Amino acid sequence: MTGQSGFQAQTRRQLLTKIGVLAGSAGLYQAMTSMGHAMGTDFKGPPKLSGAKPGTRVVVLGAGLAGLLAAYELRQAGYKVRLLEFQNRAGGRNISLRGGDSVTELGGATQKVAFAPGNYINPGPWRIPYHHQGLLYYCRKFGVALEPFIQLNHNAWLHSSQAYGGKRLRYREFAADFSGYTAELLAKAINQHRLDDIVTPEERAHVLSSIGTWANLDDDGVWRAGARSSQHRGYDKARGAGVDGAPTFSTPAPRSEVMGSGLAQWLAFPEQLDMQTTMFQPVGGMDNIGKGFARQVQDLITLGCMVTAIHQDEHGVKILYDDVAHGGASRVEEADYCVCTIPLPVLSQLDVQVSDRMKAAIAAVPYASSVKLGMEFKRRFWEDNDQIYGGISFTDQPIGQIAYPSHGIFSQGPAVLLGGYMFGPAAMDFTTMTPAQRIEEGLRQGLALHPNYRSEFRNGVAVAWSRMPWTLGCCSMWSEQARKMHYKTLVGMENRLVLAGEHASYVGCWQEGAILSSLAAVEQIHKRAQGVG
Amino acid sequence: MTGQSGFQAQTRRQLLTKIGVLAGSAGLYQAMTSMGHAMGTDFKGPPKLSGAKPGTRVVVLGAGLAGLLAAYELRQAGYKVRLLEFQNRAGGRNISLRGGDSVTELGGATQKVAFAPGNYINPGPWRIPYHHQGLLYYCRKFGVALEPFIQLNHNAWLHSSQAYGGKRLRYREFAADFSGYTAELLAKAINQHRLDDIVTPEERAHVLSSIGTWANLDDDGVWRAGARSSQHRGYDKARGAGVDGAPTFSTPAPRSEVMGSGLAQWLAFPEQLDMQTTMFQPVGGMDNIGKGFARQVQDLITLGCMVTAIHQDEHGVKILYDDVAHGGASRVEEADYCVCTIPLPVLSQLDVQVSDRMKAAIAAVPYASSVKLGMEFKRRFWEDNDQIYGGISFTDQPIGQIAYPSHGIFSQGPAVLLGGYMFGPAAMDFTTMTPAQRIEEGLRQGLALHPNYRSEFRNGVAVAWSRMPWTLGCCSMWSEQARKMHYKTLVGMENRLVLAGEHASYVGCWQEGAILSSLAAVEQIHKRAQGVG
Repeated sequence: MTGQSGFQAQTRRQLLTKIGVLAGSAGLYQAMTSMGHAMGTDFKGPPKLSGAKPGTRVVVLGAGLAGLLAAYELRQAGYKVRLLEFQNRAGGRNISLRGGDSVTELGGATQKVAFAPGNYINPGPWRIPYHHQGLLYYCRKFGVALEPFIQLNHNAWLHSSQAYGGKRLRYREFAADFSGYTAELLAKAINQHRLDDIVTPEERAHVLSSIGTWANLDDDGVWRAGARSSQHRGYDKARGAGVDGAPTFSTPAPRSEVMGSGLAQWLAFPEQLDMQTTMFQPVGGMDNIGKGFARQVQDLITLGCMVTAIHQDEHGVKILYDDVAHGGASRVEEADYCVCTIPLPVLSQLDVQVSDRMKAAIAAVPYASSVKLGMEFKRRFWEDNDQIYGGISFTDQPIGQIAYPSHGIFSQGPAVLLGGYMFGPAAMDFTTMTPAQRIEEGLRQGLALHPNYRSEFRNGVAVAWSRMPWTLGCCSMWSEQARKMHYKTLVGMENRLVLAGEHASYVGCWQEGAILSSLAAVEQIHKRAQGVG
Repeated sequence: MTGQSGFQAQTRRQLLTKIGVLAGSAGLYQAMTSMGHAMGTDFKGPPKLSGAKPGTRVVVLGAGLAGLLAAYELRQAGYKVRLLEFQNRAGGRNISLRGGDSVTELGGATQKVAFAPGNYINPGPWRIPYHHQGLLYYCRKFGVALEPFIQLNHNAWLHSSQAYGGKRLRYREFAADFSGYTAELLAKAINQHRLDDIVTPEERAHVLSSIGTWANLDDDGVWRAGARSSQHRGYDKARGAGVDGAPTFSTPAPRSEVMGSGLAQWLAFPEQLDMQTTMFQPVGGMDNIGKGFARQVQDLITLGCMVTAIHQDEHGVKILYDDVAHGGASRVEEADYCVCTIPLPVLSQLDVQVSDRMKAAIAAVPYASSVKLGMEFKRRFWEDNDQIYGGISFTDQPIGQIAYPSHGIFSQGPAVLLGGYMFGPAAMDFTTMTPAQRIEEGLRQGLALHPNYRSEFRNGVAVAWSRMPWTLGCCSMWSEQARKMHYKTLVGMENRLVLAGEHASYVGCWQEGAILSSLAAVEQIHKRAQGVG
């Protein structure tokens, strides 16, 4: 990936190396900080598009976040914009389902959502990392209220059918034992001088101290039942008050059980840049973002436009579409330029007048299959019984995880959780099931984490993204190989057409990818219209 | 600590060991789960106090959470309760400061809080762990709304004047490098067969896989600049969109810098049971808990009662107090029993009719010195400039930490952060300063984390708990030795008097300690009044 960042990055790195050599590491860190490194976002503020030629027309295809934002910024710049959307709603994959909504999928199955008033599930995007500054900027600008999304929960369950006798255990218990044994093993190697050729005498003391502190080992470098280990993994009998207030310590699981469990992946999960704290969600449902964006360009949107062809020549672009709201009548929209945000699995089936190279790029990116289960229960038993407030329990079963709502914590009445989030092969299996079978499977597998799952269940909805006719998949899955061969072609402007959407970015499968790609597309069109691109 | 848990815990552990031997670890885990282990709370629900003799009088001293709850539960049970409080407000250390409030400390210094409307600081308790089920239960019962408190923030700053050239770095950068090098070192020891006497051949593969997954090492077990390390520590140039969308990788700090930094303590911090996710705070200020509790017993409270003596004999208790609101007139309150929640540094100075053993216990527990700085800034620059939304930055300077508000994220206008939270020697140093000096020192030290600190500053308030006349310290600091010698005496009922408060618990310095100790005290009084205790 660095190979594509070109000359600037190379010279900056060379410069930093020189500074490092000259000034030592202190100088290097100072230089890195002052040069604005590691800010975690590629958002550089809203585009500055001055001097648009009045009357220049741009047609935008698709009213997801990328299309809505392109329409907004282009109109702000003075362009004459029209936005065509296939569905009878704006927002694209930014969607929330509530009681009364229906979901119809390819194959004809229709689900009517039966959630209680106020409850919802976000079947598409559901969380926003702190470094997705483009999306956060526009949420503020468009008045979309956000609240914390709880990703990591130390008291949530981990479950593997292959470990701990198939029994669930708390994240904190596993995390503490894992760090305890990892530190203990390394402390042994260092204490017994087995790494003296790698670790200098001075560093030996530092490593021992750091890992002992991190894992809360006993002073002799051992992970065992006692005050230190219970302080991280929890007590058998909790600390109390009065004459019987003394706690009793818990006992770590055997090291072989911990290391052989395959559960360490769930410690790595919240450490990924995209999953780190603080995360956010819109208050009241993810679709408040789509609605907030759509409010800005409501008058530009025409719903029910099924695009069939995108033609272009030296004079302009011609969009052929069927007007779904009017019996499918064939219509034509003409413009000077086009921003096309249609998802690639759909776009690849249309008649698009682009080079073979671009056609190959459009066909080169498979979309992930994904299924999400929204399940409503009579009450928040995960809070009342399990003391789990938001966050995620993980399992090695196909459902993968159960995610608890970050909103409405401690409230009474029915509540909705994410009863499964499948990607890849598990998603394909679930996609072949009927919606009712998917929910039944979610219930059955969920029992390993919540024994009272069935008795608390009310109803559910299962969204299989590969069966959503307007996207035919969840999101783009670029391989390294495809990226090298096709990315620059896909995101480059070709004649009067430029693509946008999460697929036209390095932030695939995230709304931020849609935002950043939209801004990149808008800037390309503006340059071209100015005769400089 | 286990030594005090007595026979029951011993036999349970013996039983579990037997189950483990007979059934293997699967059986052991099943048994532990079904026996209700590891629930993390010692709260067993509200007390069941039936059959109170009508007319039995209980006087409660101190209207902090322990006193308020004792008054509430005793009245519910049918006792005739009166609650005497020294201050002119209920709530005790459960307090929030807002614009217009004043704080007067021993020595006479008075601070007038100048925060903008809606802003506040919680100078006492400020966060609630998920396992403090007693407090959470009564918050629900008394209608106190809670919201998530963000403890861990991967994007917050870490700073040591002794490491990284004295420059701040992101938590995520340190955390990723620390886990990377820890796993790399252990992987080397295992790969090179240096731990074969400790780790079996089968376990070798498990450990390598687990630590590699956890730290996101490259496949060869190395922590180096690349896709894997940047995925955890962040990129130099973030992932973007369009033709220039490719990221560039960041470079890990040298291992010696990471291991010698002393920063590993901050990785351990959020893994402590009391600091784990999910944490909570009351919406609008911590004192909404005190107010919620006080609403239940408003008619029982008399403010401005400075207790001078607690006398008791076979007929009852006599509380001597000065009526502050009426020129300090001496008054006497008589009752059958007394729950005393007066903090030990104050109580130890009063004339209390108890055994020498109890007097020794009361004198045996030192209280922590603690100082908190509430600082208001013109805007949330930590969000706008640093992308830090809630959570805590840590430094090795005396201020210890800067904690950002978990509420009002993304809002405009002035906001208050916790500009320092000192315990121990640092707190004593700050306590000797004037309030203005404390704030100036907070500003000066904060510059290492936020270079724009001074230009954004508006005003501040500094609460030194050792100078609060009604508590003379922050909270109880039991030593293991004092616990062994004095705890059972301190929490035992002596004649007609029983103590309550966080000091009478194993959950010291937490509101949960006050709650659990209050329930324990109430139960002791009820038993005694029933003639069974």
